[in-house]
Amino acid sequence: MRFVIIGGDAAGMSAASRAKRNAPDLEVIVLEATTDVSYSACGMPYNIAQSERDMNDLVVRHAKVFKEKQGIDLRLGHTVEKIDRGRKAVMGSASEWGTFEIEYDRLLIATGARPLIPDIPGNDLPGVKALKSLEDGRRIKDYLAANDVKQALIVGMGYIGLEMAEAFHARGVCTDMIEMRPRLLPYLPEEMAALVRKELEDKGIGVHLGAGIKAVESRDGRLAAQCDQAEFTVDMVLMAAGITPNSEIAAGAGLDLGPGKAVAVDRFLRTSDPDIYAAGDCADAFHVLTGSRVWIPLALRANRAGWAVADNITGSPAELPGIMGTAVFKVLDLEVARTGLSVEEARQAGFDPVENLIQSRSRAHSHPGNTTISVNLVSDQKSRKLLGGAMVGKEGAAHRINSLAVALHAGMTVDDFFQCDMAYAPPFSPVWDPLLTAANQMLKKL
Amino acid sequence: MRFVIIGGDAAGMSAASRAKRNAPDLEVIVLEATTDVSYSACGMPYNIAQSERDMNDLVVRHAKVFKEKQGIDLRLGHTVEKIDRGRKAVMGSASEWGTFEIEYDRLLIATGARPLIPDIPGNDLPGVKALKSLEDGRRIKDYLAANDVKQALIVGMGYIGLEMAEAFHARGVCTDMIEMRPRLLPYLPEEMAALVRKELEDKGIGVHLGAGIKAVESRDGRLAAQCDQAEFTVDMVLMAAGITPNSEIAAGAGLDLGPGKAVAVDRFLRTSDPDIYAAGDCADAFHVLTGSRVWIPLALRANRAGWAVADNITGSPAELPGIMGTAVFKVLDLEVARTGLSVEEARQAGFDPVENLIQSRSRAHSHPGNTTISVNLVSDQKSRKLLGGAMVGKEGAAHRINSLAVALHAGMTVDDFFQCDMAYAPPFSPVWDPLLTAANQMLKKL
Repeated sequence: MRFVIIGGDAAGMSAASRAKRNAPDLEVIVLEATTDVSYSACGMPYNIAQSERDMNDLVVRHAKVFKEKQGIDLRLGHTVEKIDRGRKAVMGSASEWGTFEIEYDRLLIATGARPLIPDIPGNDLPGVKALKSLEDGRRIKDYLAANDVKQALIVGMGYIGLEMAEAFHARGVCTDMIEMRPRLLPYLPEEMAALVRKELEDKGIGVHLGAGIKAVESRDGRLAAQCDQAEFTVDMVLMAAGITPNSEIAAGAGLDLGPGKAVAVDRFLRTSDPDIYAAGDCADAFHVLTGSRVWIPLALRANRAGWAVADNITGSPAELPGIMGTAVFKVLDLEVARTGLSVEEARQAGFDPVENLIQSRSRAHSHPGNTTISVNLVSDQKSRKLLGGAMVGKEGAAHRINSLAVALHAGMTVDDFFQCDMAYAPPFSPVWDPLLTAANQMLKKL
Repeated sequence: MRFVIIGGDAAGMSAASRAKRNAPDLEVIVLEATTDVSYSACGMPYNIAQSERDMNDLVVRHAKVFKEKQGIDLRLGHTVEKIDRGRKAVMGSASEWGTFEIEYDRLLIATGARPLIPDIPGNDLPGVKALKSLEDGRRIKDYLAANDVKQALIVGMGYIGLEMAEAFHARGVCTDMIEMRPRLLPYLPEEMAALVRKELEDKGIGVHLGAGIKAVESRDGRLAAQCDQAEFTVDMVLMAAGITPNSEIAAGAGLDLGPGKAVAVDRFLRTSDPDIYAAGDCADAFHVLTGSRVWIPLALRANRAGWAVADNITGSPAELPGIMGTAVFKVLDLEVARTGLSVEEARQAGFDPVENLIQSRSRAHSHPGNTTISVNLVSDQKSRKLLGGAMVGKEGAAHRINSLAVALHAGMTVDDFFQCDMAYAPPFSPVWDPLLTAANQMLKKL
């Protein structure tokens, strides 16, 4: 049997490796358009932050290992342009060898996503960049190395924009950020988003909400970026206004698309064609709490889905319950984490949500290094079940959020969660972990 | 109605405060033998580590606040010696006022625990100390300030011994530790305990297992401590060989005792006398996983139980499911955390346990500051449920353990836990959180 995979990053290479491990006789062909496979895309902002680091540090496993040690037929520089479901074949062009056509028994679409670049004049100027692929990362790093970048504008204030603000800050680049939406991080309570804004502004980063970019032009060796509220004269513009799934070839083959035009898959990762799977940033998922299809492209899901596809095609059926939307990012000295539904998302999903926001401490009250940690919980008035939450603080948010994620997966009520026996020692927590304090306060609202 | 509380630390003052909040008209009398109430006992080693800090930093709420703001009749220096259940009265002696006798409608025994001091010659020498009360902490700190303490011996390698080893290290005191048992931290897999031993030894702290103390004598202005394997000439000896509950007055009144001679209580914190409750380090608890009575005296349980007692006597019945044995401590540069049952405890409880031990990373593979984190999981072969686990690492163990604790409270199988959507960002975790990697490896054993 031949298993063909389009795309050689997280989902694709996870699937390829596991399929070969499960079934060494399976023929596994991976068609990757670029020359990079299996790298930590999420690590790029932190790599860019350090001028002395090699971008290739982010490669988790090299092409050679996949080919020679794992027996995967990995073909780099192969761009798939079309899927012919009738003939069960993919067609495309390869940089060195011209066109190709390869038949499959089972196919995995793991084509990822690409940055949304605003369709404005000047978006192709040399100093205008985006960050998604490792090649994008190299371009940004090379540009920073070759040019005297004193000022930058970041368009978009999602994870990538915020992480890149930190990277620019580390590189001594004076940065402004613009965001089309009137609210920063709209899934957070406003008071929490205000903490993120304050952290950015305290570090000298300009925050401009409700502002889009209109045009970029080259002027006296610099870039003039015209935005809704102001013009910024900078040396670099980073487009981080979101990403969109690479689902065109799937759509072209008549496969169903889901939210955000991601390829729709069931809990076995099957598309609307039973011989074709999709996984990673190009595919959707079910939200565990709502049962609805969502497109929340994150790395863990990509890896998990890649493995599940491999299990499914090698005869060990793997059904994924779905995702909880758990995410964390660091912005300068703050950790920002969330899981489950925001109060607005919960309302839209038909729950009767109640939320709260408490402030607690990251360590015991008198312990050195103790800082404020804010906790937001969302629960359902009727069932008393937890629905979601978020945490912001200088420390202790990133790992604590997982306790809440586990509680959400288990369908716990606030009452049961409050009874959980959590760890306490002064360097790590107050006696009542901030999550327990938040649960206790929530109980008073239910 | 009159609510009398014996003991004014975590459990006692939690109960007093909450009872007054629930029922402002309730008469609440707290009888505390010492002059300290409501302090962070767990913070003492960290306070001792810093010579310039005031020990009173650890007081969470002052006696004056309880008395004047909260209306609690707090009587310091009042030692209860006897409970007369027939007459519903407690008798004792007060430092300034002689004897007293106070009648109660409801009584809470929150007498805490005391260090087990080996019954050996010289255990009362001035340089021989133990650490449980705030007064103990002051004595140690005063001794360190007044004497040129160059070397110390710690007897016992539990939490307090290990935390005090760190404190001595911070104060530049050269330290040896002895432990009667042949194994260090026997609830950890041996490889994990070895990591703790290595950390101690790397920092110059001597570790001597299977060794008890025989005698201490004063010699040339120093202390000669005769132990099973060697004699140590030191300037200070810290007795940290465990604690024992202060349950004598409860036993004297004919109340049932449980494991470790702790006062036996039901899930409503009632002793065998329905008008008498017990909470905190003097009382036992039910282990959530086994349903058995256990004595695991920790601060969160004390606070939680104090609240529950207050709710129960003020008419809002509160039933506590029990404890999970979740605990964490820091020893030098290591975090050590556990929850649930060790493989040996699981076997004794009648499970068919399987355990594993994996090593993962605290951050993404290429992220700066990335360190090794070890994870041990215990699960039941038959039900596939998680039973417990432990983590050791330089970072990320303390908060991660709570995710496992929540899973244990929810009765999750390894399969379900592995499906949990956890947070990922390079500064905080690999794509697969170490707990998920451990769960994945465990699945292969089930």
